[in-house]
Amino acid sequence: MTEGKPIECVAAIAWEAEKPLDVTTVIVDPPQAGEVRIKIVATALCHTDAYTLDGHDPEGLFPCILGHEAAGIVESVGEGVTSVKPGDHVIPCYQAFCSKCPMCKSNKTNLCGAVRKWTGKGVMKADDGVRFTHKESGKKIFHFMGTSTFSEYTVVHEESVAKIDEKAPLEVVCLLGCGVTTGIGAVLNTAKVEKGSTAAVFGLGTIGLAVVDALREAGARRIIGVDTDEGKFDRAREWGATDLINPKKYDRPIQDVIVEMTDDDGVGGVDYSFECIGNVQVMRAALECCHKGWGQSVVIGVAAAGKEISTRPFQLVTGRVWRGTAFGGYKSRVDVPKLVDGYMEGKFRVAEYITHKLKLTEINQAFDLLHAGKALRVVMSTDG
Amino acid sequence: MTEGKPIECVAAIAWEAEKPLDVTTVIVDPPQAGEVRIKIVATALCHTDAYTLDGHDPEGLFPCILGHEAAGIVESVGEGVTSVKPGDHVIPCYQAFCSKCPMCKSNKTNLCGAVRKWTGKGVMKADDGVRFTHKESGKKIFHFMGTSTFSEYTVVHEESVAKIDEKAPLEVVCLLGCGVTTGIGAVLNTAKVEKGSTAAVFGLGTIGLAVVDALREAGARRIIGVDTDEGKFDRAREWGATDLINPKKYDRPIQDVIVEMTDDDGVGGVDYSFECIGNVQVMRAALECCHKGWGQSVVIGVAAAGKEISTRPFQLVTGRVWRGTAFGGYKSRVDVPKLVDGYMEGKFRVAEYITHKLKLTEINQAFDLLHAGKALRVVMSTDG
Ligand SMILES: NC(=O)c1ccc[n+]([C@@H]2O[C@H](COP(=O)([O-])OP(=O)(O)OC[C@H]3O[C@@H](n4cnc5c(N)ncnc54)[C@H](O)[C@@H]3O)[C@@H](O)[C@H]2O)c1
Ligand SMILES: NC(=O)c1ccc[n+]([C@@H]2O[C@H](COP(=O)([O-])OP(=O)(O)OC[C@H]3O[C@@H](n4cnc5c(N)ncnc54)[C@H](O)[C@@H]3O)[C@@H](O)[C@H]2O)c1
Ligand SMILES: [Zn+2]
Ligand SMILES: [Zn+2]
Ligand SMILES: [Zn+2]
Ligand SMILES: [Zn+2]
Repeated sequence: MTEGKPIECVAAIAWEAEKPLDVTTVIVDPPQAGEVRIKIVATALCHTDAYTLDGHDPEGLFPCILGHEAAGIVESVGEGVTSVKPGDHVIPCYQAFCSKCPMCKSNKTNLCGAVRKWTGKGVMKADDGVRFTHKESGKKIFHFMGTSTFSEYTVVHEESVAKIDEKAPLEVVCLLGCGVTTGIGAVLNTAKVEKGSTAAVFGLGTIGLAVVDALREAGARRIIGVDTDEGKFDRAREWGATDLINPKKYDRPIQDVIVEMTDDDGVGGVDYSFECIGNVQVMRAALECCHKGWGQSVVIGVAAAGKEISTRPFQLVTGRVWRGTAFGGYKSRVDVPKLVDGYMEGKFRVAEYITHKLKLTEINQAFDLLHAGKALRVVMSTDG
Repeated sequence: MTEGKPIECVAAIAWEAEKPLDVTTVIVDPPQAGEVRIKIVATALCHTDAYTLDGHDPEGLFPCILGHEAAGIVESVGEGVTSVKPGDHVIPCYQAFCSKCPMCKSNKTNLCGAVRKWTGKGVMKADDGVRFTHKESGKKIFHFMGTSTFSEYTVVHEESVAKIDEKAPLEVVCLLGCGVTTGIGAVLNTAKVEKGSTAAVFGLGTIGLAVVDALREAGARRIIGVDTDEGKFDRAREWGATDLINPKKYDRPIQDVIVEMTDDDGVGGVDYSFECIGNVQVMRAALECCHKGWGQSVVIGVAAAGKEISTRPFQLVTGRVWRGTAFGGYKSRVDVPKLVDGYMEGKFRVAEYITHKLKLTEINQAFDLLHAGKALRVVMSTDG
């Protein structure tokens, strides 16, 4: 029994920006009131981890334990925790859900603010402290996004734990902790795409492909995939894209190309567009390729710190709408279990995004794969 | 009987940008197929007229007859015109409605494209020509916005004529041809403001006041008016604004001030904001003063040519929505008659925006009043 005791385990510490992670031993404190200690079974790598490790996140704190796309089993719970118990299968959610705050009570947003103040500072709400200590040096290690899943064991707030079906394969559904969920929700919740719509998807990595998958599911009649890497085209076609274009092949703005491609009514432009890259120039193109009068563009990609989007206000005055999404608009603890069920029923792809499987101890290889642009999702297991 | 014959009458010609209008005699040709000749009874002056006369509109064509906020009586109709007949009271609408094009058939937009190709070039659809000739020089004069109401008589496309209740005072309801309608529609159609909402209105001219009036009508619980001219505050309070602020009085961005003022939930920001000035910096402030998760900002003001709006994409990713409106989203021929009825039933203010009354022959005085920032609406009559 480990309950109530510190646990020694393997974790990957990011000591500072732009340095490889240090796979080492950490001491994970027992959960305090309102907290849950989870044994991570599988964790994937997402661009936000790399973004922070590369020093692009102005909020980034070091040393920390990164990781936010994972699944595991509850090891023990702190005082007052009622929504999960030891043995439950769970997905840690960086977007919390408390059910009580003004954001949770609104049906317009999923941006619960209950623990944001603490997770933004890398600490826990109960005592403003951390639960990780580096064994060798005794140094305290910050949490990351309220999840810190690059560790065999982690401690999270109860508000950040979604209980899921025990039959779901943890090494697959871990992807529902961020990327795949975000792409699906951007289509179904944020844009609310109707049957028969036309759409353009900029960037065909995991997020873009999940958008394509959800567009197909929503009944879009035309799905234009846009990527500068044509190596992404075959998979996108298989996922449901009807047209695939490479902006580098044109000598004019890609928004003009898309407006012409879709001009079956003398106006042209898509009903919906999605930016799944994080490039502010592409965000502009995504807005401007939308149909006058009703086209909506959803920003999903996370741009580098300080970058700004711009356009002529005339684009908006003539009816285009610019919005964005975080975690696909899903209320995490309520909706992630439903997404897991949807996957089990074969509604959308999840396993298909896993291009590489590694051990958590091989995490630096996972970062290399991500940077090389070859991987969709690298899933790491903690066993052995 | 003037039907079928050219009419000689007084009109104000804009020979070139940045010059006073020339009040002179024009010959107005009879309406061709699909056209309507209207005797203008009252015409107001809107900023778009001044914007074009000042040379800011890249599409502006000279010489032309400006004017687009007016009301009158049908004098005669061309072949095939069935929706109006001589004697009908009408409001010419720069935003046409044909009922048949993809835009008219969509319930998401009012941007009918049926005659836009011609009105954008200052000509009529039937023969790509104009109906105005300057008597003295014999020169052809371009139309403007498909309306050209600074003339005793004008010719417009049937798609641009809204038939209204004969009991409505033309010298008042002429304002429903642009500004007041735009402000009301921005609230009721574009933003769809719910009862109990909070809102910020940037700019308290006619458009901003009409927004305030519609917000009050929609049941907004807090209406924050923002203007650099405190002379606008008393009227805005009377219209329904609950708070009035002058950005010049603060040494920090006005969006920060508004977020603090509205922070009753630990987050802060308004549910809806409206930019009614045409300043791209203010458009940014209007977006950024919106509540995280659901705040929507509507751009109404028309910015100078080439100006761009910008913000950090994080503003959108965290749930703010940026949109715009043209003619308040109203389908002109269908909705303008209803707005006239709404005014007759006392649902919202219209007459109250008229601060000055002149004759059409005094039109250059009207421009002076507008430029001095003293007038809301100057209404000019054509009689005498
Ligand atoms: N809003 C959210 O909640 C949320 C959640 C997860 C991820 N994200 C963000 O979504 C973005 C995409 O994530 P991903 O994992 O799919 O990334 P990825 O790197 O796998 O995919 C990006 C794709 O964009 C393509 N690309 C790059 N530049 C391009 C350009 N100029 N034009 C066209 N294509 C271009 C690349 O070839 C690649 O295929 C990242 O910015 C990530 O941080 C946002
Ligand atoms: N989208 C549309 O369909 C549509 C239709 C009609 C008018 N418009 C546009 O709406 C805008 C407003 O029209 P109006 O007739 O009400 O104009 P107005 O000049 O009467 O009102 C503008 C107000 O903004 C205030 N102001 C100026 N700069 C400011 C600043 N930096 N901060 C705060 N307040 C400031 C002025 O003091 C004034 O009270 C114009 O740009 C006009 O072209 C758009
Ligand atoms: Zn992620
Ligand atoms: Zn909450
Ligand atoms: Zn106007
Ligand atoms: Zn039409």
